[in-house]
Amino acid sequence: MSDLILDEARFLEVLSESAQQFEAVLEDGLSNSVQPGEIARPGRLMDAMRHSALGGGKRLRPFLFAQSAALFSTDADPAAAACALELIHCYSLVHDDLPAMDDDKMRRGKPTVHIAYDEATAILAGDSLLTLAFDLMARETTHPDAAIRIELVRLLAAASGVGGMAGGQMFDLMAETQTPDQAQVQRLQAMKTGALLRFACEGGAVFGGANPSQTLALKRYGEALGAAFQLADDLLDLTADEAVMGKATGKDAEAGKGTLVNLMGEKAAREELDRLVGEAMACLAPFADKAAVLRRTALFVASRDH
Amino acid sequence: MSDLILDEARFLEVLSESAQQFEAVLEDGLSNSVQPGEIARPGRLMDAMRHSALGGGKRLRPFLFAQSAALFSTDADPAAAACALELIHCYSLVHDDLPAMDDDKMRRGKPTVHIAYDEATAILAGDSLLTLAFDLMARETTHPDAAIRIELVRLLAAASGVGGMAGGQMFDLMAETQTPDQAQVQRLQAMKTGALLRFACEGGAVFGGANPSQTLALKRYGEALGAAFQLADDLLDLTADEAVMGKATGKDAEAGKGTLVNLMGEKAAREELDRLVGEAMACLAPFADKAAVLRRTALFVASRDH
Repeated sequence: MSDLILDEARFLEVLSESAQQFEAVLEDGLSNSVQPGEIARPGRLMDAMRHSALGGGKRLRPFLFAQSAALFSTDADPAAAACALELIHCYSLVHDDLPAMDDDKMRRGKPTVHIAYDEATAILAGDSLLTLAFDLMARETTHPDAAIRIELVRLLAAASGVGGMAGGQMFDLMAETQTPDQAQVQRLQAMKTGALLRFACEGGAVFGGANPSQTLALKRYGEALGAAFQLADDLLDLTADEAVMGKATGKDAEAGKGTLVNLMGEKAAREELDRLVGEAMACLAPFADKAAVLRRTALFVASRDH
Repeated sequence: MSDLILDEARFLEVLSESAQQFEAVLEDGLSNSVQPGEIARPGRLMDAMRHSALGGGKRLRPFLFAQSAALFSTDADPAAAACALELIHCYSLVHDDLPAMDDDKMRRGKPTVHIAYDEATAILAGDSLLTLAFDLMARETTHPDAAIRIELVRLLAAASGVGGMAGGQMFDLMAETQTPDQAQVQRLQAMKTGALLRFACEGGAVFGGANPSQTLALKRYGEALGAAFQLADDLLDLTADEAVMGKATGKDAEAGKGTLVNLMGEKAAREELDRLVGEAMACLAPFADKAAVLRRTALFVASRDH
């Protein structure tokens, strides 16, 4: 086991070092310096974008992207492309927190963007983070091969838009009035949180120059990991202490939202979580000991007591 | 003059035919069919996106894109790339109309998206139109050359984001409390409405395979045209009849917003408009009679009594 699954303590170091690297790339991309093709960067809007995107989180999505790319032999640094993905995640949090959406006032122990600034600024900050993601992905410095960059733009757009994350948020809002069944909840989650996690792994493979069967294996790993991520989150929500999480918990249950745990029962949900982790591991078989970090990542995601 | 500037009646025919062609491409892109990489398209969200993007407008931005591309010898059809640009314009209208932004209830004689649906759906529809724009631009069917597609993604992102359109909307919101001077208003307008019009012309040149000096000429044409567009709009706003426009007019003046016409006076504004049209025409000199449509477009934009 020691070669195939990275030691947990070492994994946490690697995750933390990666997060610091991504933070530096994000700080650079979110500086006030006007970039080619731009006219001016309004200071207040840049501040709101930085408030959302800097100084927080484990940076799981860019980590998965970079680790997936690292399975293959590319000289290109995946950090910029990985951070383009993180910008999409950040925009989605800003817009999901808006009063008309989930109406959240705190996020990672800080006021949300529309509280710290105002609603109009939060809408524009989300729009601008979303747009900057595609800008960053398209830059020549992100990957030398234009064909790879454009494929990443296409995959990221499909994962983020009406048929992916944004569509999943729509299904989630509709679920407040029309209680979904298990298959509908699974689809909703595959879109709302799963699509970006899937892209992280599939996109990393594309960045690294994977062949089609390798890319498919990582896409499936990302799908299983995404489903495990959401199930672990739902299970955590059953028991977590509000102070530990830094946000309101038990909220889904209060709102009467059908989570998978509610629909399946806790025991079946824990079994399904184990099955998904096994599925994620199986997808990594072709990569042997090279995938030691990604195997540990699957275990990490499934035990979200952190 | 007859060879260098297209006859107005014929121009209006070409504009209308183009709008029909773009409408068909937009209908296709906004169908409920799930696309590669997507999981499902929520019907309500697709309806809201269609409400915004279909059945309205002169389609000036995609028209400029396609006409700029047509100056060069490419076999590729610019309609899909032109419609990607139009999707960006549509998203910006949906978000600008939101209660937290300009709070508009009518647009092109129809209820705005947040009135016809709800605020959360309007936020997501805008996000999804924005994302779909980059998806469409990135598709292989949009242009066979990946290097051209990725350059278009980058230019479109720079024109739309914090350093372009979205940043211009931020400056516009800030102008409600801090009255800007003439230079600040010109910068705001160059970003809020100018950047997309500039991209239409510059991006069309890139699509067509223009050389750098040709691309620069069209970029400058687009800048002059964008400034003329806004000035003509401000002048129209002084006198237009509400019923003719289908939206509230005189609104900028009521809100005490500093328009260029207010700051310069009407006479100087009309002289500046003439100067800008002359500048736009001068940029087209290298293209001789090939630019007959674009010359008429500049005159059309400057006389917005339609």
